[in-house]
Amino acid sequence: MERAVCVLGAGLIGGSLMRAAAKAGRDVWGTSASEATAAAGRADGFDVTVDADEALRRAADVDALAVLAVPLPVVPRVLERVDAVAPTVRLTDAVSVKVAVADAVAAHAPRARYVGGHPMAGTAESGWRAGVPDLFEAAAWVVDSDDGVDTDVWCDVAELAWACGARVVPAAADEHDLAVARISHLPHLLAAVLAATGAGPQGGVESDLPLALAASSFADGTRVAGTRPELVLAMCEGNRAALLAAVDDALGRLGAMRGALASTGGLAATVRAGYAARQRWQATREPLGHRVRRPRPGDLAGLREIGRRGEVVVGWA
Amino acid sequence: MERAVCVLGAGLIGGSLMRAAAKAGRDVWGTSASEATAAAGRADGFDVTVDADEALRRAADVDALAVLAVPLPVVPRVLERVDAVAPTVRLTDAVSVKVAVADAVAAHAPRARYVGGHPMAGTAESGWRAGVPDLFEAAAWVVDSDDGVDTDVWCDVAELAWACGARVVPAAADEHDLAVARISHLPHLLAAVLAATGAGPQGGVESDLPLALAASSFADGTRVAGTRPELVLAMCEGNRAALLAAVDDALGRLGAMRGALASTGGLAATVRAGYAARQRWQATREPLGHRVRRPRPGDLAGLREIGRRGEVVVGWA
Repeated sequence: MERAVCVLGAGLIGGSLMRAAAKAGRDVWGTSASEATAAAGRADGFDVTVDADEALRRAADVDALAVLAVPLPVVPRVLERVDAVAPTVRLTDAVSVKVAVADAVAAHAPRARYVGGHPMAGTAESGWRAGVPDLFEAAAWVVDSDDGVDTDVWCDVAELAWACGARVVPAAADEHDLAVARISHLPHLLAAVLAATGAGPQGGVESDLPLALAASSFADGTRVAGTRPELVLAMCEGNRAALLAAVDDALGRLGAMRGALASTGGLAATVRAGYAARQRWQATREPLGHRVRRPRPGDLAGLREIGRRGEVVVGWA
Repeated sequence: MERAVCVLGAGLIGGSLMRAAAKAGRDVWGTSASEATAAAGRADGFDVTVDADEALRRAADVDALAVLAVPLPVVPRVLERVDAVAPTVRLTDAVSVKVAVADAVAAHAPRARYVGGHPMAGTAESGWRAGVPDLFEAAAWVVDSDDGVDTDVWCDVAELAWACGARVVPAAADEHDLAVARISHLPHLLAAVLAATGAGPQGGVESDLPLALAASSFADGTRVAGTRPELVLAMCEGNRAALLAAVDDALGRLGAMRGALASTGGLAATVRAGYAARQRWQATREPLGHRVRRPRPGDLAGLREIGRRGEVVVGWA
């Protein structure tokens, strides 16, 4: 019998996870702090309660895998309930930063058998009603593969990811945070700056002319600037150190480009590097998939190398 | 009888313009420097010749409106033929920068009755075969409304834009160039920098982990980095002064954001400004349309105000 799943949080990610796990035949139940959300979940036929303690006790009773699917600021509060009610529960999460969550687990639920996770999926929508069972189909699902993680729970998380249709990307927590800073958080900041530059005054004069002329390149480049600010801030501010490194990298490239534009007028180095990088990204869309043996502690370094090559784990050998 | 149209250039824009003008019942003919392109145009039933002089003589004979639809580097060569064969022709253009074309007209065909234009439409494709008659449907079509332009030709250009299904956005040439630097050229440069930052080494170590994790925010933010570099370079390098101002504006915003991130960790100002700007852009998608009287020279300042408010001209009062 496959491991039962207790989902803590019933927003877009938690709600989609409940639907995907149920579709895969898992025994699944969840919690929400909001009675309205819990009722919406129940109306859709899911076992969703506002009583997190009860859900966690049930997870402890049947040795289920509990999944934290709440925003980072709420994580400590949920972990305190874990420590009070189900202190040694099998635990993972779906939060978009990994070092901060690992630190919070160490501080608030140090006995939990925790292995971090991050399914790289989302839409512009949020909340239970936005959830869909195929949200994780073909998505990358990062599983924390730092030395010292509980390899038994690592297998639980990998199997949950596969059950949801995702591919496992093994990575150290700090490597994950540096990577998402570059490809998920930085895009939000550049989109915000591009949008504001388009809307800002032109040579000191307020004008809607630029926005009126803006078409597809502006629309695409600013799409994620339309995300609810609270979501973007929670995500970016929770990954401050890694994001600063990514911003500095981008600023260095922009500064070099600005210098070339002002001196020779030439932009070829910038434009060609961007074109080559975009082509390289496209080549990662169909990653090489590996089948591996159920990992023992000595296997984690090798798993991390798979992630660094842009490859994925798709099942057991 | 509506004014005949002579299109100089039969690529995506010129070819679409011939199709749209013909569909609107206009007498239309065109030229291409390429015999293959001219043959493709004729095979589709259009009057396309490689003899630009003949096409221009015919334009002069019937007082047609000639439209420059060639890349900026080719503009001076075509203007020399205009000056030699049809020196006082009614003339507009469809090039993506306006000051540089006006300067070229002043230098190479100073007697032409020129009013600049820029239909804001395009696809990732290029060439005659990529052309479609509805390319300009609901698009913004900038018409140069600087003091001193020939208001009679201004009306010709506006009527051609409306015949093609577009909306007229009156603007000064320099305001247009500053605007497109912000909303069309800057997006290409930020996309290139974002792509390169995603593909670059992490803390000095080569890794494909970031690209492998990149999903929709990175995909959207880098989409135009996949445009052929030659097209991007021709577009951006032809608008150097205005682009430099846009880049400096964006760098100023990024620098302020970097400072806030490093000092307090707060990104609210950046993220909220971006969100507000994106909302404001969405509000410009259905612009207020005006019907105006056929302009006299004293009306041009008022027309430019319409453009600055993000509004459009849709017909005569």
